[in-house]
Amino acid sequence: MAENVSANNVSAHISDVVIGVDFGTLSGRAVVVRVSDGAELAGAVHEFEHGVVSRSLPGSDDPLAPDTALQIPEDYRAVLRNAVPEALAAAGVPAERVIGIGTDFTACTVLPTTADGTPLCELPEFAERPHAYPKLWKHHAAQREADDINELAAERGEPWLSRYGGKISSEWQFAKGLQVLREDPEVYRRTERWIEAADWIVWVLCGTETRNVCTAGYKGIHQDGAWPSRDYLAALHPDFAGFADDKIAHPLMQLGERAGVLSADAAKLTGLPEGVAVAVGNVDAHVTAAAAQTVEPGRMLAVMGTSTCHVMNAAAFAEVPGMCGAVRDGIAPGMWGYEAGQSGVGDIFGWFAETHAPAEYQREAAELGVSVHELLSRKSADQPVGGHGLVALDWHSGNRSVLVDHGLSGVLCGLTLATRPEEVYRALVESTAFGTRTILDAFAASGVPVEEFTVAGGLKRNAFVLQIYADVLNRPLHVADSEQGPALGSAIHAAVAAGAYADIRAASAAMGGATRDAVRPDPDRAASYDDLYAVYTELHDHFGRGGSDALHRLRTIRNQSLAD
Amino acid sequence: MAENVSANNVSAHISDVVIGVDFGTLSGRAVVVRVSDGAELAGAVHEFEHGVVSRSLPGSDDPLAPDTALQIPEDYRAVLRNAVPEALAAAGVPAERVIGIGTDFTACTVLPTTADGTPLCELPEFAERPHAYPKLWKHHAAQREADDINELAAERGEPWLSRYGGKISSEWQFAKGLQVLREDPEVYRRTERWIEAADWIVWVLCGTETRNVCTAGYKGIHQDGAWPSRDYLAALHPDFAGFADDKIAHPLMQLGERAGVLSADAAKLTGLPEGVAVAVGNVDAHVTAAAAQTVEPGRMLAVMGTSTCHVMNAAAFAEVPGMCGAVRDGIAPGMWGYEAGQSGVGDIFGWFAETHAPAEYQREAAELGVSVHELLSRKSADQPVGGHGLVALDWHSGNRSVLVDHGLSGVLCGLTLATRPEEVYRALVESTAFGTRTILDAFAASGVPVEEFTVAGGLKRNAFVLQIYADVLNRPLHVADSEQGPALGSAIHAAVAAGAYADIRAASAAMGGATRDAVRPDPDRAASYDDLYAVYTELHDHFGRGGSDALHRLRTIRNQSLAD
Repeated sequence: MAENVSANNVSAHISDVVIGVDFGTLSGRAVVVRVSDGAELAGAVHEFEHGVVSRSLPGSDDPLAPDTALQIPEDYRAVLRNAVPEALAAAGVPAERVIGIGTDFTACTVLPTTADGTPLCELPEFAERPHAYPKLWKHHAAQREADDINELAAERGEPWLSRYGGKISSEWQFAKGLQVLREDPEVYRRTERWIEAADWIVWVLCGTETRNVCTAGYKGIHQDGAWPSRDYLAALHPDFAGFADDKIAHPLMQLGERAGVLSADAAKLTGLPEGVAVAVGNVDAHVTAAAAQTVEPGRMLAVMGTSTCHVMNAAAFAEVPGMCGAVRDGIAPGMWGYEAGQSGVGDIFGWFAETHAPAEYQREAAELGVSVHELLSRKSADQPVGGHGLVALDWHSGNRSVLVDHGLSGVLCGLTLATRPEEVYRALVESTAFGTRTILDAFAASGVPVEEFTVAGGLKRNAFVLQIYADVLNRPLHVADSEQGPALGSAIHAAVAAGAYADIRAASAAMGGATRDAVRPDPDRAASYDDLYAVYTELHDHFGRGGSDALHRLRTIRNQSLAD
Repeated sequence: MAENVSANNVSAHISDVVIGVDFGTLSGRAVVVRVSDGAELAGAVHEFEHGVVSRSLPGSDDPLAPDTALQIPEDYRAVLRNAVPEALAAAGVPAERVIGIGTDFTACTVLPTTADGTPLCELPEFAERPHAYPKLWKHHAAQREADDINELAAERGEPWLSRYGGKISSEWQFAKGLQVLREDPEVYRRTERWIEAADWIVWVLCGTETRNVCTAGYKGIHQDGAWPSRDYLAALHPDFAGFADDKIAHPLMQLGERAGVLSADAAKLTGLPEGVAVAVGNVDAHVTAAAAQTVEPGRMLAVMGTSTCHVMNAAAFAEVPGMCGAVRDGIAPGMWGYEAGQSGVGDIFGWFAETHAPAEYQREAAELGVSVHELLSRKSADQPVGGHGLVALDWHSGNRSVLVDHGLSGVLCGLTLATRPEEVYRALVESTAFGTRTILDAFAASGVPVEEFTVAGGLKRNAFVLQIYADVLNRPLHVADSEQGPALGSAIHAAVAAGAYADIRAASAAMGGATRDAVRPDPDRAASYDDLYAVYTELHDHFGRGGSDALHRLRTIRNQSLAD
């Protein structure tokens, strides 16, 4: 009766399915995916009741500190309770056909728990203590801690620093943990486990703590088999010495491994059969590589949305300047996973369209029944390359790669009284494409060439943006097929964890999908962009590599001015 | 019965008046001014029927060449025919009390005439020939001719070139004349006089040709008593050799001199008594110095509107880099008159408010019953200096002083996703103030210190802009009292021509007016602006003085792209 569907598909039945659950910033999404070919049978979304908690804790009027961004663990559980059974029902698949579940999460989203995995914020005595709650990836209140971490690491020549482009982010585990210690020592003391939400949700599913190599490496400073040393941590703060050893350290599991099986409690929660495989925790961007068939070395995946995350595997390690991180096994076992990023992309276009499009454009867009974005795109799409005379630097949210400098800001050159809003809009889109090209150039110069470029994320549906990227990069773009890449990626990992495929590469080949050469460059436009890119690079290096500190001076002036 | 009203007022009766007529770009304005104290008794405006002729000649559908800007001489006469008697009637002053008339004009606005002053375009055989018409100051179709003029002058080391910041403008007499020769040799050949409209209108009034030192110097390349040499002109074009000698040369008269007396024809045209004094022709910005009491050395007048013109007298000549012109007797006899300028000021604010203010701001402004400018000003007025983190370069129309480079363009640095439109607006206003400070610094560095700074023009009523200027320049601003500075200035010149005052300085003291210290700098804001100005200067020098040719490259890319 059982039928093997392919040579790679080790043991699955033709009608077996897996569940992928993607935990985003405001909601979670579950999809039901056929193991044999990756077909997405149905999905369901559940919004987080509390979304991002940044003003005050639920039931309280006490204002939270600026740049605080917290979440509520019960909102995560509610996704399992609601979205998973809904998706299954919508797919019309009996629960017995589910052979595994996989998850991915935003990162670094991290929380303090007791030894049994209970979030500290769920203990009555800590319900009113902000530091007892999960800190969302975009909690940006630990910059002072990140600065101290980086300064001390540079001073001491800590070997791991270069794996992160020379800078640990304020978003990551150690900066956020140090903030808790400094600001609420009691919460810090009572924290028995300091754990990524990516691993915590797996704990909820299978009842045992696991840790994945991906967040450990990219967000937890785990390199070459070790955490930052006790010595180093003690120098940051005497009580921080045991942070890694006591609260984080745990055997690490490879991506695609089976973390455990679904517990009785979790089976009740999700409506899935007890005992099915639960995949090791993972991160949204990284798990998408499997969905987009970019696990093979040299295939860069760009998850393009408000910001862009680039992930790519390579066979060997090389120091690529300005990466967010290079982690052994970080995307798939046996390879070096590189992560780079652009901190502002779609949100730069959004900022301009929302705050700088004149009333007549809003009216025109409404009459045409299109968004202001679409109108601005249409108005500038047919303009010859460089016809606007503009070049921008895409640093409105700072620069993640390759400069790793969040003190930078956006620049716009070439304005005249004839400059139209759609021309500025287009120049901003182009600037992010130039930023991507700068990253690809850095990989190539470091001996880690980018052989292919695949796009996923919300912007993959934007033909205007993609054509500009193809022309600027002068290479064809492949586009991930799935509209819910992370959830599909999680499902693929579930299939591997369930033993349906030998490894992520095989599962990705069978279950993932991308349209190859979906957008091709135009040779003439590509040639014209070379000239504009040369101007971009001159400005990039002048303002970003020390030729001028004007942007840092403006930031300092601004901060002092607003603090007075 | 006759009563002398002051020691300086040589011969006027207490109720004597003079007429000042200001010829602008779209209309002419006449004012009736009391000689004794400069009181403006009444005024009248007459719009030019044909305004700026840039698409096709009246009665024709043939398109004019790009960047062409012509006018119709009869529109000028119509101002004399309508506005002068209307103003007199409104003032309730009998014509017999008028002792003189003075005029000022846009410049360089220049036309070809026969030997008797008939505009060539009024000869039936030339009615359909564009080059037979007056070329308005903003006729920008002679850039190729200006380039040739400059290149040859630099090559030959012509001594006059440095008096104009190293560049003759395409707007001026020689570029426009050379364009006529190249494009319509017959019109050129038939041109017996090539004359500024400023002098032509005086010809209309008194029936004889005169030429004033001001336009001869600033727009006609007359320096040290001579025009550009026949040799030089012949090298430009063989038939251009006699351009100055044959078509322009004429004894020059000092400003404030009596060009002649009102002819019988002109008396009939204007309703004024035949025989009253007619002042020598003059230019709008320069004549305003008398109205604003800035004739004395070291008093800079900034006529601030869409662009800004700076004029200032000094006792001695010094080469100030990047001036538009330095002309002996050019503003008042016996002194060196300096002119500098900023090619974009109010039009930069206008460009931003019109094309980059979002719909909600337009609604809010409408609800408040204020302009979008006013709303943007209000929203950013109270922000601490530098709180927006922005610095702009005010080169959206190029840079007239001190870089004399119209291939430059605007730059905006320091943008973030939190940047609001009102912050950009304020940064643009500040950038023009920084541009002014750069000009003042150039004067000071050349040994021609600016002792006082007085504002006239449309922006003098803008408290938001003036406060920023006072703070950036860190000096008090005086503000011209008259709402029609050029017309009042022309009236003052008429009073001098009529012999009512000994000279322009005396007449200006008695009849002009400015509110001293109308806007005072705030010491704290001024100190904060020093830091922002330092960033501006760094960017100014980097992009404007050869550190980077990025802006020129963008312009070249744009022009090639649009030409393809």
